[in-house]
Amino acid sequence: MSPLTFTIEKKLKNGLGRAGVLETPHGKIETPAFVVVGTKATTKALSPEQVRDLGAEVVLANTYHLYLQPGDRVLQEAGGLHRFMNWQGPTMTDSGGFQAFSLGAAFGTSISKIAKGGKEEESEGGDKGSQEVPIMAKITEDGVTFKSPFNGSEHHFTPERSIEIQHNIGADMIFAFDECTSPHASHSYQKEAMERTHRWAQRSLDAHKKNTEASAKQGLFGIVQGGRFEDLRKESAKVIAGMDFDGFGIGGSFDKEDMYTVVGWVNTILPEEKPRHLLGIGEPADLFGGVENGCDLFDCVAPTRMARNGTLHTSLGRINLFNAKFVNDFTPVEEGCGCYTCTHYTRAYVAHLFRAKEMFAATLASIHNLYFIVHLVKKIRQSILDERFSEYKGEFLKRYYGKIQT
Amino acid sequence: MSPLTFTIEKKLKNGLGRAGVLETPHGKIETPAFVVVGTKATTKALSPEQVRDLGAEVVLANTYHLYLQPGDRVLQEAGGLHRFMNWQGPTMTDSGGFQAFSLGAAFGTSISKIAKGGKEEESEGGDKGSQEVPIMAKITEDGVTFKSPFNGSEHHFTPERSIEIQHNIGADMIFAFDECTSPHASHSYQKEAMERTHRWAQRSLDAHKKNTEASAKQGLFGIVQGGRFEDLRKESAKVIAGMDFDGFGIGGSFDKEDMYTVVGWVNTILPEEKPRHLLGIGEPADLFGGVENGCDLFDCVAPTRMARNGTLHTSLGRINLFNAKFVNDFTPVEEGCGCYTCTHYTRAYVAHLFRAKEMFAATLASIHNLYFIVHLVKKIRQSILDERFSEYKGEFLKRYYGKIQT
Repeated sequence: MSPLTFTIEKKLKNGLGRAGVLETPHGKIETPAFVVVGTKATTKALSPEQVRDLGAEVVLANTYHLYLQPGDRVLQEAGGLHRFMNWQGPTMTDSGGFQAFSLGAAFGTSISKIAKGGKEEESEGGDKGSQEVPIMAKITEDGVTFKSPFNGSEHHFTPERSIEIQHNIGADMIFAFDECTSPHASHSYQKEAMERTHRWAQRSLDAHKKNTEASAKQGLFGIVQGGRFEDLRKESAKVIAGMDFDGFGIGGSFDKEDMYTVVGWVNTILPEEKPRHLLGIGEPADLFGGVENGCDLFDCVAPTRMARNGTLHTSLGRINLFNAKFVNDFTPVEEGCGCYTCTHYTRAYVAHLFRAKEMFAATLASIHNLYFIVHLVKKIRQSILDERFSEYKGEFLKRYYGKIQT
Repeated sequence: MSPLTFTIEKKLKNGLGRAGVLETPHGKIETPAFVVVGTKATTKALSPEQVRDLGAEVVLANTYHLYLQPGDRVLQEAGGLHRFMNWQGPTMTDSGGFQAFSLGAAFGTSISKIAKGGKEEESEGGDKGSQEVPIMAKITEDGVTFKSPFNGSEHHFTPERSIEIQHNIGADMIFAFDECTSPHASHSYQKEAMERTHRWAQRSLDAHKKNTEASAKQGLFGIVQGGRFEDLRKESAKVIAGMDFDGFGIGGSFDKEDMYTVVGWVNTILPEEKPRHLLGIGEPADLFGGVENGCDLFDCVAPTRMARNGTLHTSLGRINLFNAKFVNDFTPVEEGCGCYTCTHYTRAYVAHLFRAKEMFAATLASIHNLYFIVHLVKKIRQSILDERFSEYKGEFLKRYYGKIQT
């Protein structure tokens, strides 16, 4: 019996989108929903009460980060993630694979992948060029070996180890161990990586089921890979759909233009009655596209990362509070916004805090941006229930992208 | 008519201490009370609700900092400090003098004072030695000229200007412009500076009374100076007591051993019926000493600054959360403490946040330390009302200083 129950309340007439309710051992999530990221068992600059009060229903922490610091054993001894971080609602952890392969995303460095023989086959990673930095991760059939960015110590993640760590952390929803490839990888490399990911999916599932106590209270999501290739994505969806997962993740770094197409291929095949998480997506247009193509859950660090840089969402596009015109602007970040920041502070005040390098700037900006994105997805949900998704999408995107404030 | 009403509820039988209530246009303060510092119109890492919920009744912002950033005009346009920072309770601003003279305190640099002729007469300032840094402040009878640490631009504070800025900021309690001398300054220099401070006090008072609208809703505190010299302190207390201030501040950087003595000299002379603020004091022993010697209000950045470095108050002394033993310590920072941090998180969690350089570490640690100090002063107050001040002082100091945890 799955510890998760997913009920679809309404479907789009055109498209794969649906509104539903996902029940977890720590409460329900109305889907589609935006999952707030709390990488190291804290949503940066926010208290759990601030996260709850802005409307978030679920928090995703990162296995890789918590394994390295403070260690999954500490979370286990603490009584699990919920108690450790004082978040009473639903939680997720990713598998740790993405970060172990591409530390670049988290640590500002890039890595190269190494084929089995030790020869560099596929150059991967971040924006800064993979030539300048040491090779930090090695993939074999067994798993991935990587070095800690803290002290250079060597670590080895396998599907079994990832599941064990995620059991120790104790989130309501956990993910199978997978290999996240570059969108520019060749068909042959994508196929090889995908087939390995499928074998790792089965090993993850076996390890999960073996621990009957954990699998009774934690749901395991399998991850579909396959890059931008239709044959591979469809094959991956079929294979992963055929395994006894409690939900599904759609992984991979997408080129923007491919994303909706790829997601549509996959969700046409995945079983309708289980929840689907689109990993790492948080741009407004992509949330509409993801929902329309059948995704139920989304997570992304962008809203909080942008916030810490002073960039805030408004329904007319983004604004940056370092712009001089905001110094004397005594209106809220967005007129009519119901978030704590907009109902208590002016643009002038938040702009002052950013200039003064005050920590409370990050708090107020993060609250606003998360409220904006969480409530955007809530409104998308409501538009499905009200049978006006297309109208809402059209209106929102026209306002948001039609005029970019600077 | 003063906008402040001060009522003494009970006095110590031995000593000058008293418990009272200070009513301001934004609510009452039960005294003695610890005033939480909010230098740049924010208590670092905390929301105003977090400040209120930890028990604080009053916040002190810094005139010098707000004048430079975002500018007092911005606060005036915003409707004043309360509205700007969303703090509905009582507020204070200092005069800006201390920071203008000794930027070292705020910016990690030291300054030298220059006598009227431009010759260096008195070496002042921070811990880092005054020889290595450029001279940044110049005192004349008119006021002080200093350079902005942001862009080197020159600024001039006079008593009249300080009061005007403080009127624009709009705090309930404001301070006369004074010169804060080094505890090591000679008798002749202290005398000269004190007499100038007295002339500046009168000019501050005149400027304040002239603005009838502001003086109807903001109370002005005069500041007693005079260094460590009994004759000067007593003279300063008499002169300042003779002016029509709404309350008094006791200024000066003290050598530890002098402080209680100096405060006692001053408070024996100051009129009993007005509140007395001891500037910049927040060490537990000094709070007992200050109360016992007749002070009603205290402020200090130490609790929050210590907190951001991972050092936390407990009734058995201080602990530092970077100590390895706290990684697996699943008890609260202090067993039995009623603060948000102790009732929701473990030492292990807060220690993890510090190691992970998460902003929420500063929030949780600041809440605890401020709760500890604010409630210590509340307990001191209660001990006066219950006629057991000496017993409480003895018990507390024995526990706190008897055993230093590391």
